[in-house]
Amino acid sequence: MSSNGSAAWRVYLSGEIHSDWRERIADGVREAGLAVELLAPVTDHSASDDVGVDILGPESDSFWKDHKGAGVNAVRTQTLLRSADVVVVRFGDKYRQWNAAFEAGYAAALGKPLVTLHDPELTHALKEVDRAALATAETPEQVVEILTYAVAGPGVPR
Amino acid sequence: MSSNGSAAWRVYLSGEIHSDWRERIADGVREAGLAVELLAPVTDHSASDDVGVDILGPESDSFWKDHKGAGVNAVRTQTLLRSADVVVVRFGDKYRQWNAAFEAGYAAALGKPLVTLHDPELTHALKEVDRAALATAETPEQVVEILTYAVAGPGVPR
Amino acid sequence: MSSNGSAAWRVYLSGEIHSDWRERIADGVREAGLAVELLAPVTDHSASDDVGVDILGPESDSFWKDHKGAGVNAVRTQTLLRSADVVVVRFGDKYRQWNAAFEAGYAAALGKPLVTLHDPELTHALKEVDRAALATAETPEQVVEILTYAVAGPGVPR
Amino acid sequence: MSSNGSAAWRVYLSGEIHSDWRERIADGVREAGLAVELLAPVTDHSASDDVGVDILGPESDSFWKDHKGAGVNAVRTQTLLRSADVVVVRFGDKYRQWNAAFEAGYAAALGKPLVTLHDPELTHALKEVDRAALATAETPEQVVEILTYAVAGPGVPR
Amino acid sequence: MSSNGSAAWRVYLSGEIHSDWRERIADGVREAGLAVELLAPVTDHSASDDVGVDILGPESDSFWKDHKGAGVNAVRTQTLLRSADVVVVRFGDKYRQWNAAFEAGYAAALGKPLVTLHDPELTHALKEVDRAALATAETPEQVVEILTYAVAGPGVPR
Amino acid sequence: MSSNGSAAWRVYLSGEIHSDWRERIADGVREAGLAVELLAPVTDHSASDDVGVDILGPESDSFWKDHKGAGVNAVRTQTLLRSADVVVVRFGDKYRQWNAAFEAGYAAALGKPLVTLHDPELTHALKEVDRAALATAETPEQVVEILTYAVAGPGVPR
Amino acid sequence: MSSNGSAAWRVYLSGEIHSDWRERIADGVREAGLAVELLAPVTDHSASDDVGVDILGPESDSFWKDHKGAGVNAVRTQTLLRSADVVVVRFGDKYRQWNAAFEAGYAAALGKPLVTLHDPELTHALKEVDRAALATAETPEQVVEILTYAVAGPGVPR
Amino acid sequence: MSSNGSAAWRVYLSGEIHSDWRERIADGVREAGLAVELLAPVTDHSASDDVGVDILGPESDSFWKDHKGAGVNAVRTQTLLRSADVVVVRFGDKYRQWNAAFEAGYAAALGKPLVTLHDPELTHALKEVDRAALATAETPEQVVEILTYAVAGPGVPR
Repeated sequence: MSSNGSAAWRVYLSGEIHSDWRERIADGVREAGLAVELLAPVTDHSASDDVGVDILGPESDSFWKDHKGAGVNAVRTQTLLRSADVVVVRFGDKYRQWNAAFEAGYAAALGKPLVTLHDPELTHALKEVDRAALATAETPEQVVEILTYAVAGPGVPR
Repeated sequence: MSSNGSAAWRVYLSGEIHSDWRERIADGVREAGLAVELLAPVTDHSASDDVGVDILGPESDSFWKDHKGAGVNAVRTQTLLRSADVVVVRFGDKYRQWNAAFEAGYAAALGKPLVTLHDPELTHALKEVDRAALATAETPEQVVEILTYAVAGPGVPR
Repeated sequence: MSSNGSAAWRVYLSGEIHSDWRERIADGVREAGLAVELLAPVTDHSASDDVGVDILGPESDSFWKDHKGAGVNAVRTQTLLRSADVVVVRFGDKYRQWNAAFEAGYAAALGKPLVTLHDPELTHALKEVDRAALATAETPEQVVEILTYAVAGPGVPR
Repeated sequence: MSSNGSAAWRVYLSGEIHSDWRERIADGVREAGLAVELLAPVTDHSASDDVGVDILGPESDSFWKDHKGAGVNAVRTQTLLRSADVVVVRFGDKYRQWNAAFEAGYAAALGKPLVTLHDPELTHALKEVDRAALATAETPEQVVEILTYAVAGPGVPR
Repeated sequence: MSSNGSAAWRVYLSGEIHSDWRERIADGVREAGLAVELLAPVTDHSASDDVGVDILGPESDSFWKDHKGAGVNAVRTQTLLRSADVVVVRFGDKYRQWNAAFEAGYAAALGKPLVTLHDPELTHALKEVDRAALATAETPEQVVEILTYAVAGPGVPR
Repeated sequence: MSSNGSAAWRVYLSGEIHSDWRERIADGVREAGLAVELLAPVTDHSASDDVGVDILGPESDSFWKDHKGAGVNAVRTQTLLRSADVVVVRFGDKYRQWNAAFEAGYAAALGKPLVTLHDPELTHALKEVDRAALATAETPEQVVEILTYAVAGPGVPR
Repeated sequence: MSSNGSAAWRVYLSGEIHSDWRERIADGVREAGLAVELLAPVTDHSASDDVGVDILGPESDSFWKDHKGAGVNAVRTQTLLRSADVVVVRFGDKYRQWNAAFEAGYAAALGKPLVTLHDPELTHALKEVDRAALATAETPEQVVEILTYAVAGPGVPR
Repeated sequence: MSSNGSAAWRVYLSGEIHSDWRERIADGVREAGLAVELLAPVTDHSASDDVGVDILGPESDSFWKDHKGAGVNAVRTQTLLRSADVVVVRFGDKYRQWNAAFEAGYAAALGKPLVTLHDPELTHALKEVDRAALATAETPEQVVEILTYAVAGPGVPR
């Protein structure tokens, strides 16, 4: 017997916004028929960058423009992150993605199960983040397999 | 992909009870079709003031009348505040509204994402409260835009 | 506008099991049409006293009989107490009801809104418990009024 | 009156995977018609042992093979354990089952009501774990009786 | 090797104020040379009853007199209880001592190790409180022995 | 016997900075010989207002000047508030002092014992804050008496 | 620059009581001159087994004898475990040592840094416990090296 | 009056290890005579990288070498971070420093006051981390000024 509860698992997908990794996980989750709700930050880069000044008025100093934007985005990300059952954090090879590492640290302190996703060449740079994770995957498909195992158990053919 | 979860967000609207800001936010949320539940304290001023003695018996000393009333109101407000995902706090230009600032502090200590709403002339007086907020809006419509972005993402036309 | 959320409030009714106060609250809640789920310990006195030895085997020493019984009851009461939004604690004039005071302290430490219910002649003996409560009622009907105000607001005729 | 809430109770069944105790509890819960969701780790021993390397790639060192597997399993078990209302931990006479004791300690620190299940000959070895439990049962049927009492009350014939 | 740390243990002695049990524990702790700081509520009954009105002004209604007094006492008791490592709660045969049971519940919810102290004839009435305790003693001298064992280990002759 | 522990109590004095209430409490504490450490925000008004831009550079927009200043002050106030055993909050008749109410709410959510201090004419406006407090004083000398009772007990002549 | 703070680190040594591993760690810590306080359960096996009945009176049923003893020991172990900065858990090849695994789980849930210590042949049986640890050592000397690095940094020759 | 408590503040300096920023803060703190204890990770890069395999044995796979090393370093960093009153995080222009952002997120979730330190050209990349901070400095000397203000108040000449 292997029971996982009837409520959908809430899985927050943090990090990189310039590749299709979230879509690949969403496709895999759908194909596996998993009771999983995928949560994500806003991934439209320019909308995300400009949302603060778009809604709350322009800033001449870019520090404050960023500050406003980061605040509005955090209304979403903090709410989703705090409500998540599992947190997956993706690091790509572009940009510094300090936000991804920040959210990984935030999730770790809250005791959320953490899965990291990145290419092997980032291993050394990410060693502290990976150390806090329960699994480190290299492909979105591996994340889908982890979620399938966690949510549905090994009875589901992979 | 941008996913916000299927459960409605619980947004607690704290503060001023003598203007129509809650209705304007409710209208905006309804028009935007957001999955948001708006929560609020009792906003009928005299009912709120008298509820303690109305239910639990009269008091000759106004301190204890207020004490009783504040207690009964807190059964509602503490329950809603603790269950909220996001807390919006409105400060108007009338009355001292220490209760609004108290609830902002309470929410901040619980780690709830906080949005403040007030006219620019209150900026200096509210600097510590605004510092703890993720966004400071001047109009209810800006709050609706923030909730729209947070809950539904930028794909929804504003 | 006055909004209380769509989910039913969970209200745990702790304390006295030898009078009909829970039924009177249940009647009042039903009549008022409140979205309230009432939770309670097992109130069948002898079933509650004997459940430990009934299920887990007899004890010759009454201390351990009580210990077993209190454990099995606590599986229920701790789960319900921890899941409650509001806790009402009733003290009657019979028995020592230390369990009621224990649950009041437990609820207070968890930050749950607390309402006490007892006759005025117990005021001095209960002063520390009442101090931790947001309201002290003398009748079950007053508790219903408090719940009506908290859950449905003053728009509902009382 | 005796009310237990309308939401199903989430009961996590931790420990031994080489006997049919979970099935016997599931049968009993079904027969009693309890509003209980049973949660469990993956109980397919070899799937559980191999899941880390199956998904994330082979390891030559068995320590790291185990480490990977334990991580993927923990994505499931930590999520279920943290979401559970009640935790039942079964100790059998085979294997060391340190994981069961680890999960009992984890649950105890989170304040979850804990029930242990084992044969009397393990009493001395398990005294610290039993001390942290609210009840110690010898048979799965006793666990069903405890859940019946906790969830449905004594009105339900056992 | 048996090490207990160099800092003195803070032990809060809650409950009955009309017998010499605290002095007997203090004597025993001193004789055993334990690194223990004993903490206590104010045990001067009339000072404790009157402190609210003595400091903050008279009340005509005894409910509010008690309310004020209980508040001032709680400044002390909550601070000490929250800072304690271990909590001992004494129940005597006089008075209802709901405050003792309230503090036991408060301490239990905070995860503090709890020891109860009372005569055997109170066993049935205190079963839920005793269930939450790690030990139930009948004499202050037994409490001293428990503290001696816990703080200094068995190497210290008792 | 009445024991309060050997460590000095940390008492944070929040609120009004334009009267001598902190000095009067400090004088009283010193005269009573209490083991109390008084903690406070920076009370030099212009230093406090300007510290953000003084240290981190000028701002043309007063909102951001205030934001910077409030941040630097919060490094101090959050640290002290979180480390305090007891929090006293003073409201005067000048300025809006929303920061005082914010800190009261923050302290309440952390479970810190709270004492308010204000003139009776502010009672109605402060009813929610006073409701969360264990005592409401009108003079700094009353606060000293409360601290004396809490820290040293009634044996110390007042 | 490498600073570790002036306060001694509190390191709780949980687990096996039938070998000299605690002494070897104590020797190593002393030789390295580390600012470390070592904490431990009572390691006198028969004193530990009998302490419950020795202090609180005899039991005819061995379950309750063990229950009493485990309670008194837990007064010590829970207090030390909760106060520890770092927890080291040792598993030997004798006895089942479920208590060690229980304490590891308890420490993990509290977020304490965890180090495990055991022979390589126990690796498979301990994989879930090791997964929750920050390091797995095979010898007490390795634990000393880890503590030396953590407390004093690499500047101290090993 | 302006009081900051007698205990030294514990300030954890997270992040970049390839410049002298910690020394400059240490110099400033010493010159200002502040009651501040500076805490830091091990900043010897190669010692930090190799500590896992140095103590616990070699690894052929660099992922596991890093994993071991990150674990041993985390024994230190998690302990210090959790014990800190204030956390300062430095981002330099070299390396990815995901660990710094991870620790910032961890500290933020624990509610620690956070100060970031970096050059203005990193502003956009660090906007989410800066949003969670109470102050963003560009030089170590500004951090010293913030600490001086927070710890000693404006009376100390800067």
